[in-house]
Amino acid sequence: MDDPDDRKDHTPDIPANQKVERVLKINLNKEFAEKAESLKPQLHEQIDYPLSIIEFIPDDNTFFKCKAVQKHPIENLPNLSYGKNDQLILDFGSHRVGYLSFHLGVDGINVDAPTRLRLTFGEIPYDVTENLHPCNTWISTSWLPDEIINIDWLPTDVEMPRRYSFRYLKIDILDTSPKYKVRFSNVSVRAVSAVPPTVKVPILETTDEELMALDRISQVTLRNCMQTVFEDGPRRDRRLWLGDLRLQALTNYCTFKNFNLVKRCLYLFAALPREDESLPACLFEKPKLSAGLDYIVDYDALFGPTVYGYAVASGDLDTAKELWKTVLGSMKMPLSHLDKDGKFDSNATEAWKFLDWSAGLDTNAGMHGLVLYCCKEVNKLAILIGKSPPYVDVVQKMSEAVLDFYDESLQVFVSGPDQQVSWISQAWMALSGAMESVVCLEAIKRAMENPQSLKPLTPYAYHHVAEALARCGGEEDCLKLMKEYWGGMVKAGADTFWECFDADDSRRSPYGDCHNNSYCHAWSCTPSYLLRVVLKKYLDGKR
Amino acid sequence: MDDPDDRKDHTPDIPANQKVERVLKINLNKEFAEKAESLKPQLHEQIDYPLSIIEFIPDDNTFFKCKAVQKHPIENLPNLSYGKNDQLILDFGSHRVGYLSFHLGVDGINVDAPTRLRLTFGEIPYDVTENLHPCNTWISTSWLPDEIINIDWLPTDVEMPRRYSFRYLKIDILDTSPKYKVRFSNVSVRAVSAVPPTVKVPILETTDEELMALDRISQVTLRNCMQTVFEDGPRRDRRLWLGDLRLQALTNYCTFKNFNLVKRCLYLFAALPREDESLPACLFEKPKLSAGLDYIVDYDALFGPTVYGYAVASGDLDTAKELWKTVLGSMKMPLSHLDKDGKFDSNATEAWKFLDWSAGLDTNAGMHGLVLYCCKEVNKLAILIGKSPPYVDVVQKMSEAVLDFYDESLQVFVSGPDQQVSWISQAWMALSGAMESVVCLEAIKRAMENPQSLKPLTPYAYHHVAEALARCGGEEDCLKLMKEYWGGMVKAGADTFWECFDADDSRRSPYGDCHNNSYCHAWSCTPSYLLRVVLKKYLDGKR
Repeated sequence: MDDPDDRKDHTPDIPANQKVERVLKINLNKEFAEKAESLKPQLHEQIDYPLSIIEFIPDDNTFFKCKAVQKHPIENLPNLSYGKNDQLILDFGSHRVGYLSFHLGVDGINVDAPTRLRLTFGEIPYDVTENLHPCNTWISTSWLPDEIINIDWLPTDVEMPRRYSFRYLKIDILDTSPKYKVRFSNVSVRAVSAVPPTVKVPILETTDEELMALDRISQVTLRNCMQTVFEDGPRRDRRLWLGDLRLQALTNYCTFKNFNLVKRCLYLFAALPREDESLPACLFEKPKLSAGLDYIVDYDALFGPTVYGYAVASGDLDTAKELWKTVLGSMKMPLSHLDKDGKFDSNATEAWKFLDWSAGLDTNAGMHGLVLYCCKEVNKLAILIGKSPPYVDVVQKMSEAVLDFYDESLQVFVSGPDQQVSWISQAWMALSGAMESVVCLEAIKRAMENPQSLKPLTPYAYHHVAEALARCGGEEDCLKLMKEYWGGMVKAGADTFWECFDADDSRRSPYGDCHNNSYCHAWSCTPSYLLRVVLKKYLDGKR
Repeated sequence: MDDPDDRKDHTPDIPANQKVERVLKINLNKEFAEKAESLKPQLHEQIDYPLSIIEFIPDDNTFFKCKAVQKHPIENLPNLSYGKNDQLILDFGSHRVGYLSFHLGVDGINVDAPTRLRLTFGEIPYDVTENLHPCNTWISTSWLPDEIINIDWLPTDVEMPRRYSFRYLKIDILDTSPKYKVRFSNVSVRAVSAVPPTVKVPILETTDEELMALDRISQVTLRNCMQTVFEDGPRRDRRLWLGDLRLQALTNYCTFKNFNLVKRCLYLFAALPREDESLPACLFEKPKLSAGLDYIVDYDALFGPTVYGYAVASGDLDTAKELWKTVLGSMKMPLSHLDKDGKFDSNATEAWKFLDWSAGLDTNAGMHGLVLYCCKEVNKLAILIGKSPPYVDVVQKMSEAVLDFYDESLQVFVSGPDQQVSWISQAWMALSGAMESVVCLEAIKRAMENPQSLKPLTPYAYHHVAEALARCGGEEDCLKLMKEYWGGMVKAGADTFWECFDADDSRRSPYGDCHNNSYCHAWSCTPSYLLRVVLKKYLDGKR
């Protein structure tokens, strides 16, 4: 294990939650990279068409303060002519990830100048009802989903070469010429996913329409993120993150059952260990396989549980055995944060502890719970593949240290020097099984009832709260939370679940400007997993 | 010939010099179209590279009030990194028409977002020193030479699919991400032309460096307009116009001698006669051969002289014979404007009489001279191919009517009800040979000396003035005009001759905004023709 004192050569002046370790060398494992490559899926394609030509009108009763109304039936599209400064918005009816093409026809005799169009691909109304530029964000504005194209010779078929993630397509006709207008026909999207369109997922056995909607939208979210890897979001960042992968994999096992895609992603991470055996938080497939510079301690630790989940779901113990050394390596950096008493100390290194995007979160308690949970899962994995559980002593010590985080009087877990109470601290402590379920459930509920405690921002964190509730006997509380939180997105009109959601603020963003949010984001796809696995017995019992 | 009274079904509300006839049917001549297609040239390619990384600094002593200075030697380019809001300008040293490509490299470890670039292709400094948008123009802003592109995966080679016309390339880095910058290398243009780069044009036998510059820049202008047709301008409109073709062909005969490209263009027009046998003013090759809606009476009339010029230069009488019927057809509409006394009446139809873009030009006198000139040329063509000259009587009548345009007291040709005196009226009257050379020369010089008379705006009209001077014995006046006008562009820094030029106004434009001007425009390429053909004997005599 690295000596933490050797790890102080850090890049300065980087925002708190974006702290980056010194750049560690990657020890590429070619064999694993080749195995991952051999598992690369052929994507399935489906051609979809817009359903309507719409416009958005103000509506104070909706989350986005506007609603779509039909302007023309889609059948009329080929007969409509558009000239300079005209605009049209097409509605594909639901969220798609894929490649747009259309025929650009002419109304006029001479096409005596090129056509210039701006295409804007919208996941939510704001994307097409507002100007995306300028965008007040600290991440790249290159993510914004608009393109300006110039077409020299009309009529012609136009095939957009990049992949987009959208329900709405806005086309601004920047110019044609005084001598002609343009017409659009054969507008279609070649939607892509690793999941075949014909896949059969057993229906969720419930008569509760809210739950059916949660399950359905979870599946669309997951399917649209399942490409050549499990992407975090097909609009942004379009890449594989370790923490997101775990939740996607769990939801995939109870829906699409694409074990090979999980296996591929596990090998991709295992191909890219850093010199200290820790795993990158994310990785890039293109233009060639490479590790993201980001490192997140909790994501690193979650590799083992992800392998364990895969082994249990698929029965493929060979892969688990082959990745065993990687699993042990991935635990080193997280465990290096334990003090002599086995208590997780977030300040032991400056490495990024994430848990959630909520501002001001103290991660000590949550990380303690998370690492303890991971140790237990890795011990189970060891037993499954006939190894000796490596973290029996660590679990013992960490379990005892849990008490240091528990405030007897408040009956919640507290974190850091300010004794911060947050939902996510309770959730990970509960998931770690550190204390009795009844104690943990009480702690979560107390935190949730206390307006002073720090709420999660992301569905990723909400998932862990929801699962913790359900695992501790708070199934009804879990359902209530799901209906409020994911159900809130459904009421707001979500076709896929979002990267972040605040029922009170339709512009909430971790990045400064909601135009750069991702509205089909894999870490929010877990309602299907919660309903079909975690809550299954409970829901069966209620029927 | 059409009855002018039948031709009153005109489109209303179109700007005066953009009047459009009712849409006439095109009687496609398939045989001619196929012949033209068989003559389509394989374009020659040459790879060129930028010479310098520059910036423009203010300089009141220059036409554009700025001058380029080197910011970095081009060798440094691969090592320079550019991030959000950075900009660079590359100077290719002279004007190119072709396809840009470059390698987009990375300075940084992770490319965690796409790169968004704006590329602006500049023929003159204003194109890259000013914002092109918004553009106050009555023609299409889609001509503006800028593109916004998004690149997903870096490092990568970028090949721009459209053809551009430029010397300067400005790249605005709209965004990368906080984690990386971009680097540019292998920037090149695959320049294209129907003229091979190895072509040998005999040098102009003169020691006058100003004339050598005029000749050199004329050739670059013509070469860059010679593509699969003689384009008017490779930036705008990128297509074949009949009036421009004649001047390009004349210059081509004494330089590149690409007879087949002229032949192809003659057959293209001949393939597209309108139902009244008139020829369209321009045509489109792509996406399929079609006639431009524009009709210009003078361009129609100039088809015959263009065929004659081709036959004389190439010796290919078979083509002239095959096009004879087309030539006769092309004279019908122009001749329909003659009144009973053989005097050209611009008001006989609303069809567009062009001659020049100068505002307020009365075209009666100029058109009379032009049509008379054309009748004479067609008569010569007839004799060359063994036909009976068709317009002997017309020439007789029109020559007599010339006197009606001549003001004895002023000793100039006057035009229209207001007795307008313009340079271009004198020029075409002189070129028609209607009166003695000495009278015509005097008329041109008097018009040029009179500040009240209407000056030309375009090099197209300046050419006819210059040629008329030289043909009437005013060779020295012609040289003076050339050095002032085309030489003025040279002094202003022209790499190729422009669509329009006003020495007193660097923003002069026929279209409202000079950003939509074309700065490599074929109708300004004639100094080589004037020096090598029209003025040859005179210059030889001076040596």
